[in-house]
Amino acid sequence: MTQLLDNPVEALTRYVEQPSVSADSSFADGVQGAREFACERLIELGFSIDLVETPINPIILATRGDPAWPKLVIYGHYDVQPPDPLDLWTSDPFKAVERNGRLYGRGAADNKGPQIVHMTALHRVLKKNPDLPLHITYLIEGEEEIGSPSFRGFLEEKKDRLAGDLLLVSDTGSPGPEQLAVTTGLRGLTALEVKVFGPKQDLHSGVHGGALMNPLQAIMMICAGLHDKDGKVSVEGFYDDVRLPNNWEKEELKKLDFGEEDYAKFLGISEFFTPPGYSALEAIRFCPTLEFNGVGGGYQGEGSKTVIPSEAFAKITCRLVPDQNSIDIARKVRLAIERLSPPCVRVDVEVKGGGDPYVVIPPGKPGGNSSNSALMKKAFPLAEGCILATFGSKPLYLREGGSIPIIRDLKEVANLDALMIGLFTNEDNLHAPDESFHLGILENSINAFEHFFENLAEV
Amino acid sequence: MTQLLDNPVEALTRYVEQPSVSADSSFADGVQGAREFACERLIELGFSIDLVETPINPIILATRGDPAWPKLVIYGHYDVQPPDPLDLWTSDPFKAVERNGRLYGRGAADNKGPQIVHMTALHRVLKKNPDLPLHITYLIEGEEEIGSPSFRGFLEEKKDRLAGDLLLVSDTGSPGPEQLAVTTGLRGLTALEVKVFGPKQDLHSGVHGGALMNPLQAIMMICAGLHDKDGKVSVEGFYDDVRLPNNWEKEELKKLDFGEEDYAKFLGISEFFTPPGYSALEAIRFCPTLEFNGVGGGYQGEGSKTVIPSEAFAKITCRLVPDQNSIDIARKVRLAIERLSPPCVRVDVEVKGGGDPYVVIPPGKPGGNSSNSALMKKAFPLAEGCILATFGSKPLYLREGGSIPIIRDLKEVANLDALMIGLFTNEDNLHAPDESFHLGILENSINAFEHFFENLAEV
Repeated sequence: MTQLLDNPVEALTRYVEQPSVSADSSFADGVQGAREFACERLIELGFSIDLVETPINPIILATRGDPAWPKLVIYGHYDVQPPDPLDLWTSDPFKAVERNGRLYGRGAADNKGPQIVHMTALHRVLKKNPDLPLHITYLIEGEEEIGSPSFRGFLEEKKDRLAGDLLLVSDTGSPGPEQLAVTTGLRGLTALEVKVFGPKQDLHSGVHGGALMNPLQAIMMICAGLHDKDGKVSVEGFYDDVRLPNNWEKEELKKLDFGEEDYAKFLGISEFFTPPGYSALEAIRFCPTLEFNGVGGGYQGEGSKTVIPSEAFAKITCRLVPDQNSIDIARKVRLAIERLSPPCVRVDVEVKGGGDPYVVIPPGKPGGNSSNSALMKKAFPLAEGCILATFGSKPLYLREGGSIPIIRDLKEVANLDALMIGLFTNEDNLHAPDESFHLGILENSINAFEHFFENLAEV
Repeated sequence: MTQLLDNPVEALTRYVEQPSVSADSSFADGVQGAREFACERLIELGFSIDLVETPINPIILATRGDPAWPKLVIYGHYDVQPPDPLDLWTSDPFKAVERNGRLYGRGAADNKGPQIVHMTALHRVLKKNPDLPLHITYLIEGEEEIGSPSFRGFLEEKKDRLAGDLLLVSDTGSPGPEQLAVTTGLRGLTALEVKVFGPKQDLHSGVHGGALMNPLQAIMMICAGLHDKDGKVSVEGFYDDVRLPNNWEKEELKKLDFGEEDYAKFLGISEFFTPPGYSALEAIRFCPTLEFNGVGGGYQGEGSKTVIPSEAFAKITCRLVPDQNSIDIARKVRLAIERLSPPCVRVDVEVKGGGDPYVVIPPGKPGGNSSNSALMKKAFPLAEGCILATFGSKPLYLREGGSIPIIRDLKEVANLDALMIGLFTNEDNLHAPDESFHLGILENSINAFEHFFENLAEV
């Protein structure tokens, strides 16, 4: 009997055709379609499925194998980003199209392609050996692109079902199609919104200017006080708990076939601006930040309007590194903002939540943690060997600047450490028009994971 | 023969019914209708009309009388602000409706009501004395609400036709229906827009945060450097040419039946923020400002989006007092911004133009200018007497914080000084929904102007 996973490009094409945009309820049918697609593939692979209801989109919890076997947990998400702006797509985002060795479509790389890689590899392994002695739990959620709001509650409720030896995730990036990365860390996040309230309504800046503090002036005065001139965050105690990166992590970065000049060109800037002592490629991985994601107030249109606005806002996110704590940093930033606030306006600071940083030191590397499971100790070198055999070079062990709070949650709740093998690259245009997945990576990584699953079982 | 100006409320009603919104070309018929309305009234008054073409809306230039007579120039504008937001109006903005002793409608106060006052008074005077020995030039433009872009060019072209002894304007405010003001000054203006350009496109603040200067951080650092903590503008040389107000001007303010507490309540603030040594009611008239009218960049919607924007902007206007010069101040602010700009972003400063401050010291008051015409020397005390006779109290002599650059232009090009008699009040909701004109002011000021025109002719 032929199965869809016999042809992974065809399988990914079908998966992309389900427009599973979680941010927009008008795509509810596509979200359901993608969930059903994932469940069908898992059923074909011999998994038994439990669809766990959440306030938004159910989480697929699927298992196969004997609970006495080594336990692997695999995470993915069946939802995708909105396709906007639609006019910047070369072809329909929900009709997967092959061009130049890539499959184009929303979700092709994030995260449907990597899921098809894992499933196809498992399909091949289980065809040869239906009794593969590996207990596998699949977790595929449908709210990742809206911040996984139901995931923590799900974990607390189902933690007994999630006991395992290792978490496998392919939802991070790699330097390129010939150079994969094992992601060894993710920054944490804390988000705040500051609002400044001045006069009860917008005022004519000619008639009233000079009498009162302009909320825009106040918010800029406050925000400008949150950094030093040298680029460090000047919030008191911000760096107290920062752990320095291991030397081998800095060395690993030097192996990248992508230098500071390439990076400046990619960003389109003439000069970097990093905290003292860190290169740009180091700073984005090893340093915490305080960034302004949006600031606004007053007239936003063309030309001018002579107004003193009644309020102004700033949206702030901090990226955190070990051992900073998201709640502690939110408290410190709030305090700094309160200290910087002038008395003649009202300032509200709302903490919007976040998550802590996560670092996994591969077994055998300095700076690691001794509580690794036998499966973890085997998995890292095995993955390195499989990647070397199929891609022709060893993976690099790199932290990423972004955040996936659920990885840290799985560590906290289920004590799962993660093997994160990055399958997408900068060229894949995640969250942007013309998202695509590299078909060479698809093919090579299916082969790598086939060997990986086959050999992992023999712990 | 009855004329529309026999009934000023009816005349104003008809004028308001012409929706002459200059900012929106879909109101072109209304703009033309209002212009025709004004021309018809002037023809009935015996004026000969010259409609001067401009790139947007023609300017009405009308004259009556012997050029050997004392020469009065009267300014007004036939265009109005847009009526938006429409849903906040109690009645149709372009169907004038009388309620509570007011006539409601867009333009009722700004500036159609005051024009009807002048015209009705002239109508009464000229009916009694068609040969009134006063040469009157009417200037009614149709672009005031979009910044009078054609007016300066018109002045240069027609300055010979504008020679005169005094300019009469009723397009400023008064404290209330029982207390008129003669406006003795208007602040100048200079507008700038600052743009900061960072990476070539918006970036994920997790993936790239730490490597580069965020344009929002840069613009807030720059803008926060433009004021001292005590509320003064810290641009080098900003105050060099500021002339202190005359003592009598400060004394005049104390006669206002509206104190600092009333003002704070009106603004809805708990604390003023003024330059040292000035009360709020002084600061808005006598001090220059640098205000942020709009600042923006990055994500403006609900919730959060973890982005480093590729650019950010700030819209700035300075209000200027004598003897600051608009071009000089723009140059100084630009220089300060350039000095504050970090090298790792590109900063563009665009000067958007402006106008110089204007002050007219009534003849006889200390600090005045000796070049007053005979007509001007007569007009100020005459206006005071007419206002006292009809309103029951003398006018206050007050500067306003706003700007009417064309007043200064008329001084520069045609050496006309202005008698500005304010006929609208804060309660008239200029530029806002439910604009209205106070019918008590309408009636009293027609009587005052009737006496004024009658007696002014006998210089």
